[in-house]
Amino acid sequence: MRTTVGIIGAGPAGLLLARLLHNAGIDSVVLESRDRQYVEQRQRAGILEQGTVDVLRAAGAGTRMDREGLRHDGIELRFDRRRYRVDFPALTGGRSVTVYAQTEVCKDLIALQLKEGGPLLFGAEALAVEGAGTDRPRVRFRHQGREDVLECDYVVGCDGSWGVARRAVPAELVRVYERTYPFGWLGVLADVPPSHDELVYARHDRGFALLSMRSTSVSRLYLQVPEGTDAGSWDDDAIWAELERRFETGDGWRLERGPITQKSVTPMRSFVQEPMRYGRLFLAGDAAHIVPPTGAKGLNLAVGDVVTFARALTRLTETGSADLLDAYSETCLRRVWQAERFSYDMTTLLHRAPDATPFEDRLQLARLERVTASRAAATDLAEAYTGFPLD
Amino acid sequence: MRTTVGIIGAGPAGLLLARLLHNAGIDSVVLESRDRQYVEQRQRAGILEQGTVDVLRAAGAGTRMDREGLRHDGIELRFDRRRYRVDFPALTGGRSVTVYAQTEVCKDLIALQLKEGGPLLFGAEALAVEGAGTDRPRVRFRHQGREDVLECDYVVGCDGSWGVARRAVPAELVRVYERTYPFGWLGVLADVPPSHDELVYARHDRGFALLSMRSTSVSRLYLQVPEGTDAGSWDDDAIWAELERRFETGDGWRLERGPITQKSVTPMRSFVQEPMRYGRLFLAGDAAHIVPPTGAKGLNLAVGDVVTFARALTRLTETGSADLLDAYSETCLRRVWQAERFSYDMTTLLHRAPDATPFEDRLQLARLERVTASRAAATDLAEAYTGFPLD
Repeated sequence: MRTTVGIIGAGPAGLLLARLLHNAGIDSVVLESRDRQYVEQRQRAGILEQGTVDVLRAAGAGTRMDREGLRHDGIELRFDRRRYRVDFPALTGGRSVTVYAQTEVCKDLIALQLKEGGPLLFGAEALAVEGAGTDRPRVRFRHQGREDVLECDYVVGCDGSWGVARRAVPAELVRVYERTYPFGWLGVLADVPPSHDELVYARHDRGFALLSMRSTSVSRLYLQVPEGTDAGSWDDDAIWAELERRFETGDGWRLERGPITQKSVTPMRSFVQEPMRYGRLFLAGDAAHIVPPTGAKGLNLAVGDVVTFARALTRLTETGSADLLDAYSETCLRRVWQAERFSYDMTTLLHRAPDATPFEDRLQLARLERVTASRAAATDLAEAYTGFPLD
Repeated sequence: MRTTVGIIGAGPAGLLLARLLHNAGIDSVVLESRDRQYVEQRQRAGILEQGTVDVLRAAGAGTRMDREGLRHDGIELRFDRRRYRVDFPALTGGRSVTVYAQTEVCKDLIALQLKEGGPLLFGAEALAVEGAGTDRPRVRFRHQGREDVLECDYVVGCDGSWGVARRAVPAELVRVYERTYPFGWLGVLADVPPSHDELVYARHDRGFALLSMRSTSVSRLYLQVPEGTDAGSWDDDAIWAELERRFETGDGWRLERGPITQKSVTPMRSFVQEPMRYGRLFLAGDAAHIVPPTGAKGLNLAVGDVVTFARALTRLTETGSADLLDAYSETCLRRVWQAERFSYDMTTLLHRAPDATPFEDRLQLARLERVTASRAAATDLAEAYTGFPLD
């Protein structure tokens, strides 16, 4: 098998990249180890930056998003029984975010790809990327019980931090930056309309809580839990009771309960692998970087990477200039590190570290106070939340 | 001896308080353990916020400051061989800071106090504050070889973190918040015009450096050094060479050398003791809180405290209402915690922590990048640097 761009992974990064390349007249093949049903159901992020929305729309993948996505003009911060709303458009000159689940983005892109794109192989497990340092990189993969080789001009690894792509970069060239957190998120999906029309980020002495949503009828709720917590150890009543405590406002606001349909624990990690390119292998999304979910940056960063790659390759194809392709790693990493910074800051602003000193606790409250007291500080947060420019 | 307000300590806090009370027609006695020469020579801070300048001027202590102080409209950040100027008036709607050494502020206030204020006793060592919980607090002190007692309506402890005042608060009521840093500042005074007309804050792989000044002919320079460094272990040439390295710009800028006239190491600490009031004892300045010097907040916080006390007591005297006096601790602490936050952030933004992970190093650069890229982030910094409002 042979193509111009071999894409490993049919998450939002790989699928969007295939779409962008298709629109630019560049052919690609997508290899995805899981089956279609799995990909269309795995719960991930749900907050799209303005730039991500624009990209999806321009790529012709925005029809259902425009119909079903929920535009959000702010978030609410709760701490010390106080509420403070961060008003995105007022602070950023009109920017906002859109609530539209990653699974829905994937469904839309898969449908488009199967209808009019290049090959998208489910159940095709990439085994190795070979010859990344040569002009003819290859992806060895297993599909329907047989081993095969995909010969490419370029390989883009969109296969996450456990995938094979990032391991194909010679170890001596790799620099890894990492931070783990001593807590995770217990996340639930519940069949109940969200109790607030925007996301609520709560800092509480008992730990962080987040009220989010997937639609107007499905709530997505999170509780900070100790690292390594088993989701099964929390029964539904205990989850609702704990959420109520952490969202407390003292002003009569109520959390509506409903049937919990999914329950899982996500660990929290910051991770960056540099560089994001080796020869003709390019890393995109989680294959190169992980952020803790507090700032809702993971999906949006992946979109930024593949847009950068598609633009760079289009430029090479159209003008013969490899300048953008050569700058790929540097261009992406500028944005990545800003997102890493923001995600770290949002995480440490709102979570309760088990080993926090009293001084650090008070500093945390002073930081939240600062956001409520200074338009500049709130603007800094709103700019980052609604997204760094895709330039 | 008897007075309305017994003030322990003739640093800028105690001296300014005596002046503010005098102007309000309230009598006070200031006890200072050191002699006048010592107080007028000890090197401390040198950056006055706009609010501090306004207070000194309104108190009639601004004549020489207005003549000799240097108005600064910004600071420069250096990192990664780049320079970035934070333009205070442009970002904050006209605010700036004034370079005028704390020793000069003290000289001016001492001269005024001796000329027209109440008693100011040098060599008067406070031994204990007694009866703080009663209507008749007393300060026991030793002066000219004899023990004496100062009977007061109120005692204000402006005697720093090693003084007796804060120890007079019953231990069971005290909450202490603290953070130490594994580095200090080697500070030098040099008889050479400053090599830049504004302060330069440099983040360098070898550690932080600061170019400051006391006047147009005297430079004040600092190097981050490991905790516990002996100033004597650095000879002058080594200091200049190290400063040059850390201020490197790559654009031909030069550091002018000159005779070093003083050399000392300051440890770095964050510290808050709450509450700042116990009965009729009030803590002000370093007696209640310490900040690392990176944000230049120590002196300005002390000024905020004594202004708050003087206003509150004036209000009680004039209207009979103790509401501001009762709110003293809370009012001061709001400002204190913002300054603690800012000082901590400036310190961690610019210093090299010996145990920093590669991830934390990159985060630090991303934070500096953010200040240069976002007007909101730069404004947040400029607002805090030029000063939080005094009420």
